[in-house]
Amino acid sequence: MNSKPTRTANIIRQPGGVEATDQVAVEEPLEIRVDDEPLAVTMRTPGHDEELAAGFCLTEGIIVEPDELERAEPCTLADYGNVVLVTLAGEARERQRQRAAITRRDFYMTSSCGLCGTTSIDRLARRVPPSQPTFAISGKVLIQLPAIMSAAQESFARTGGLHAAALFTPAGELRLLREDVGRHNAVDKLIGALLLSGQLPCGQLPWVLLVSSRASFELVQKAAMAGIGFLAAVGAPTSLAVDTAQRFGMTLAGFLREDRFNIYAHPERICTDESETPAKEHQKSVATNASGS
Amino acid sequence: MNSKPTRTANIIRQPGGVEATDQVAVEEPLEIRVDDEPLAVTMRTPGHDEELAAGFCLTEGIIVEPDELERAEPCTLADYGNVVLVTLAGEARERQRQRAAITRRDFYMTSSCGLCGTTSIDRLARRVPPSQPTFAISGKVLIQLPAIMSAAQESFARTGGLHAAALFTPAGELRLLREDVGRHNAVDKLIGALLLSGQLPCGQLPWVLLVSSRASFELVQKAAMAGIGFLAAVGAPTSLAVDTAQRFGMTLAGFLREDRFNIYAHPERICTDESETPAKEHQKSVATNASGS
Repeated sequence: MNSKPTRTANIIRQPGGVEATDQVAVEEPLEIRVDDEPLAVTMRTPGHDEELAAGFCLTEGIIVEPDELERAEPCTLADYGNVVLVTLAGEARERQRQRAAITRRDFYMTSSCGLCGTTSIDRLARRVPPSQPTFAISGKVLIQLPAIMSAAQESFARTGGLHAAALFTPAGELRLLREDVGRHNAVDKLIGALLLSGQLPCGQLPWVLLVSSRASFELVQKAAMAGIGFLAAVGAPTSLAVDTAQRFGMTLAGFLREDRFNIYAHPERICTDESETPAKEHQKSVATNASGS
Repeated sequence: MNSKPTRTANIIRQPGGVEATDQVAVEEPLEIRVDDEPLAVTMRTPGHDEELAAGFCLTEGIIVEPDELERAEPCTLADYGNVVLVTLAGEARERQRQRAAITRRDFYMTSSCGLCGTTSIDRLARRVPPSQPTFAISGKVLIQLPAIMSAAQESFARTGGLHAAALFTPAGELRLLREDVGRHNAVDKLIGALLLSGQLPCGQLPWVLLVSSRASFELVQKAAMAGIGFLAAVGAPTSLAVDTAQRFGMTLAGFLREDRFNIYAHPERICTDESETPAKEHQKSVATNASGS
């Protein structure tokens, strides 16, 4: 179990193709168990886990008074780590028992929400075979995409509060854009639009998915489920996003700016600006990111 | 049901105290029902709701092939709107029936996750009485807080990927800071730290909660549950964050920058820079935000 908030990742800086290391925020699942029953799984940065569990119980109404929390402690039995056991006291104990009786849940199995119900990477891997590169995009084209997306975002400019997800062809043509206050919702809307219009292939979608936000595990998961082989983010990727993209054969680019970007996984779908051929020579170093998890 | 992605909110611009209107991203709950069973509630921006439901079903594994989705359509019976009915086909139908049988849930009742299980504002209101102002902070002090928070964020500077939540006294002293890839987790860690150290009062906490992110309903909800009466955000607030803060008597400031910020609800905890007394003269206009929901 990694308890540090950040981790080193091998990256390729573009333009230039310089191999380097960068710090990424660590993202790992934490299971919160209350009186021996699973309550929720949240994707969090390790550290202060007992505080997170205690705070979650208060802010989500499991306890309503401070003294209804007896204790919150790491589960030492779980050999996979990342479990906090919360023990309730007073009325909260019985209240939670009644609540659990009518709403028995298994977040691990249902995966009903990207945030709280995400399955493990292993389970996801059983559904989504690693994708093979079927296209490549020029780095010169890639850095132009955020500006095209921003221009197309009618709402974003007015509020500064809406995330965007957009699909681009390798030639840099905007195919589809959706917005939402939730970045996961913007991606779901985009993928749902393809699905409802019969445009979702059974295999890999030969397009780039660009998100205006950071790239978390959840977004990589959603993209993988839809057969998207290239995720680009305006913001930073998390550690688990990097690991998951690596494992699923997904190209992951982050910090996409007007003049630069970083490649975190599978650079083979990006043509170097010099040669306009896939940057295969860099595959090996970035492929080692996955081993750090 | 509001189907526009943005809405007008009455704000007070500081410094200067100019009353103005601003566009905020609309945030409303959407319930996704699958084969007549509730699956999830997500806080989303209205628009493209059928796509959101269809995409969610695919990216979360409810369907694994496009043809397992028969249709996704708005529920016309629900007089409260914001419900999409998904009908499955093929093997997905039986698969979901089995899944639902062992994991029966009621997201509305349990509120186990800020994103998918949020209760309605009405239910929250039963738990949290509107708070009364017990302190005020100078606008001059307020605009200095983001820089203090950034300086204290060791990890943020290294990754650009960690959200922060920090508590400040009205004098601008940093009392506590927590970081996480999830903004809701950063807030839960902060509140949990207070709880576990016996610092959480039964009444109102006379401190300002500053978040490095946007302010969503979820963050206002969590702050309210902990008795926090002042939420300040570096980013934009959503419509539901504004409405909820207004209703709970919480001061909500957004777009906190070095030289300016906007007040979206309850300005009485902010001293105008001129007089250093609470800006009570502006309460009325900002109080009308809640009626727009």
